[in-house]
Amino acid sequence: MDQPYTRIKGGICAPRDFLGNAVSCGIKNPDADRLDLCLIYSKVPCLSKGLFTQNRVKAAPVRLSQSHLRANPIRAIVTNSGNANACTGPNGLKDAKTMAREVSRHLDLKLREVAVCSTGVIGLPLPMNRVEAGFPSLAQGLKAKGGNEVAKAIITSDTHEKEFAISFDLDGTRIRIGGCAKGAGMINPNMATMLCFITTDANVSEGCFDRAVKDAVENTFNRITIDGDTSTNDSVIVLANGAAGNKRIARGSKQCRIFEHALQFVMNKLAKAIVRDGERVTKFVTLRVEGARSSVDARKVAQAVANSSLVKSSWNGNDPNWGRVIHAVGYSGASIREELINISYNGKAACEGGLQGRTNQEVLRNIVSKPEFTITIDLGLGDASHQIYAADLSPEYVDFNRSEYAYWKQAKKDGLV
Amino acid sequence: MDQPYTRIKGGICAPRDFLGNAVSCGIKNPDADRLDLCLIYSKVPCLSKGLFTQNRVKAAPVRLSQSHLRANPIRAIVTNSGNANACTGPNGLKDAKTMAREVSRHLDLKLREVAVCSTGVIGLPLPMNRVEAGFPSLAQGLKAKGGNEVAKAIITSDTHEKEFAISFDLDGTRIRIGGCAKGAGMINPNMATMLCFITTDANVSEGCFDRAVKDAVENTFNRITIDGDTSTNDSVIVLANGAAGNKRIARGSKQCRIFEHALQFVMNKLAKAIVRDGERVTKFVTLRVEGARSSVDARKVAQAVANSSLVKSSWNGNDPNWGRVIHAVGYSGASIREELINISYNGKAACEGGLQGRTNQEVLRNIVSKPEFTITIDLGLGDASHQIYAADLSPEYVDFNRSEYAYWKQAKKDGLV
Repeated sequence: MDQPYTRIKGGICAPRDFLGNAVSCGIKNPDADRLDLCLIYSKVPCLSKGLFTQNRVKAAPVRLSQSHLRANPIRAIVTNSGNANACTGPNGLKDAKTMAREVSRHLDLKLREVAVCSTGVIGLPLPMNRVEAGFPSLAQGLKAKGGNEVAKAIITSDTHEKEFAISFDLDGTRIRIGGCAKGAGMINPNMATMLCFITTDANVSEGCFDRAVKDAVENTFNRITIDGDTSTNDSVIVLANGAAGNKRIARGSKQCRIFEHALQFVMNKLAKAIVRDGERVTKFVTLRVEGARSSVDARKVAQAVANSSLVKSSWNGNDPNWGRVIHAVGYSGASIREELINISYNGKAACEGGLQGRTNQEVLRNIVSKPEFTITIDLGLGDASHQIYAADLSPEYVDFNRSEYAYWKQAKKDGLV
Repeated sequence: MDQPYTRIKGGICAPRDFLGNAVSCGIKNPDADRLDLCLIYSKVPCLSKGLFTQNRVKAAPVRLSQSHLRANPIRAIVTNSGNANACTGPNGLKDAKTMAREVSRHLDLKLREVAVCSTGVIGLPLPMNRVEAGFPSLAQGLKAKGGNEVAKAIITSDTHEKEFAISFDLDGTRIRIGGCAKGAGMINPNMATMLCFITTDANVSEGCFDRAVKDAVENTFNRITIDGDTSTNDSVIVLANGAAGNKRIARGSKQCRIFEHALQFVMNKLAKAIVRDGERVTKFVTLRVEGARSSVDARKVAQAVANSSLVKSSWNGNDPNWGRVIHAVGYSGASIREELINISYNGKAACEGGLQGRTNQEVLRNIVSKPEFTITIDLGLGDASHQIYAADLSPEYVDFNRSEYAYWKQAKKDGLV
């Protein structure tokens, strides 16, 4: 399919009637002026859908937002960064509720029309005195050009904000989809340490919307990995407010397919941006598994290879080490026959029939030395395939993740622990 | 049970009638005089048992040794280091057979009485001209004090050889068990990139021997992890030649339990030594999971925590980061209830009921700053438990594993690729 999309500015505020704002509350760092509390709001009622982490340890805001989204469509999303409000027990749930209540009070919404997200360090209480002080200006400052501030406020160890928006024509009506996301560490399929918010002004039926969101997440955010860790806070929330005024998009219609494709296009851009901006990542690797006996097998192989410390270290070292790739294929649990496996780098054969392939090693080294390349693993057994985006493992990643002691020291200073 | 064992010298040559020898063939490095081809030999027929990698990509020597061990007891083990002879196809199998044939010819054994092991880089052909040149002096030099040379010849990225031997009394007869092992990278349960050879002069029935070896490996080598990668070459081979002259140990007897306990004692020493000498490892962590609903769940939790890059990075950074531990518990796939989880470091509560525990953070930091400590995760749900030995992930591990290009360059120089 063509991509008849026009890239537009505005992020989550690009679609009509969505407002955003962010403030600095000193959650990330009390001594620096970093945006860390933000709000997304639709001026009119929305359809809404959220997909959340499959980790069985779920942060308080995840549990609260899940219950709100089950009860009714939500219209506002409040998010803090710097603290995940995870493993914080009944007090954590109370804090998440307080965040929702503050927003509902200022915006004249029902409590359960507000979703809450948090991202950051696990196990420390939110500094609620600082968080609560932010709400009046957060609500009052809501604006149609607040998208970029929201994108900036949700990041943690990301090096830059990630936002993307498009418009496209649907039977003569202009539809807009915008989004922002944060990632950096704890990124693995099902989903990532990841927050992603998507807004659209499409007028869409619940049937089409639900399915489109689920499929688009499955094909994008569930197909990336940085470090194989699935966090406690992953959340993707999508709001559709119908402000574009198009004829309602029916489930199963041609228009629904067009909408889903556009939604997936936006999510894919954000998912790839998360991998590229992974913690101390230097390589963006597209890993394609083909010829598997089943799609479950194809996924197992892709995940085993993408999460092998040795494979990832070799990518960091510009080493086209197909031996480590095939060894991860071997322990993936998938059905394989070693003598049928082909592995190529950007289409150049590194391993043929389980043996060293014909390509000159220097050619392969040149490919792996690039910041982006594709590895294709053909199992030669069937028709199933799976593709994920992966990243290398660098000494700097480990160094970066050695200690979160600074957070604990701040919590101690705040009298929270 | 007490440990009524006397530590003795000699490694795999400590038990009676076992000989060993090693030579330098230039497989590891043609320009340095490093031992890289070795032989273990019993002067009398043995019982033998081998357990091998569960990776579906199996190196040629693994496939050959498996077929030899299925056919009959073996009496000799020939091993090269520096090249895994994995992913080398029919030629690799031919090379492994040549190694067995050379040994059988020099020692007047049947071909299938010789097991072959290889460890090193994957995907490059063995430099057989250099390997074959080593056999005459390898066989001629077999000696009763060759254990340490064998232990040295099997290591690759290990910083030192690992060998251990004990003797103990069984109904008035002295029994000896000796062993050596190598590890360093690609170490994960089921088993490791690991070679381990154990010899004993116990006179033991096949029934007792088979079960004892299986159980001892399950409780030792299958309970260690360094980097979560299961290699193509893992092999544990145990030989029992009966030269101690004790009354044959019957299956299910009290003597069999004593023998199994002693075997496990030796394997446990070697397994722990492998973790301590893991590639660029600075911490030895005993990870105990208790209170699980099932032993499968307990194992899942232990493995998820031990293989999380973020958990392992925090160990490297002396950070008692129980938040990362519980997040890995959450995605392990085991049944859990967050509010019942207790996590302690050397018995000091870090997390109680899913929340920050009572112990002062500095006390926990002092514990994690030590080179060895124990983390206990109590799920509070049942009676099942599992324990594994794990290691940290260091920036230096990644740096060390960035490239194996030097091996390829050597193979090119040798005209092998």
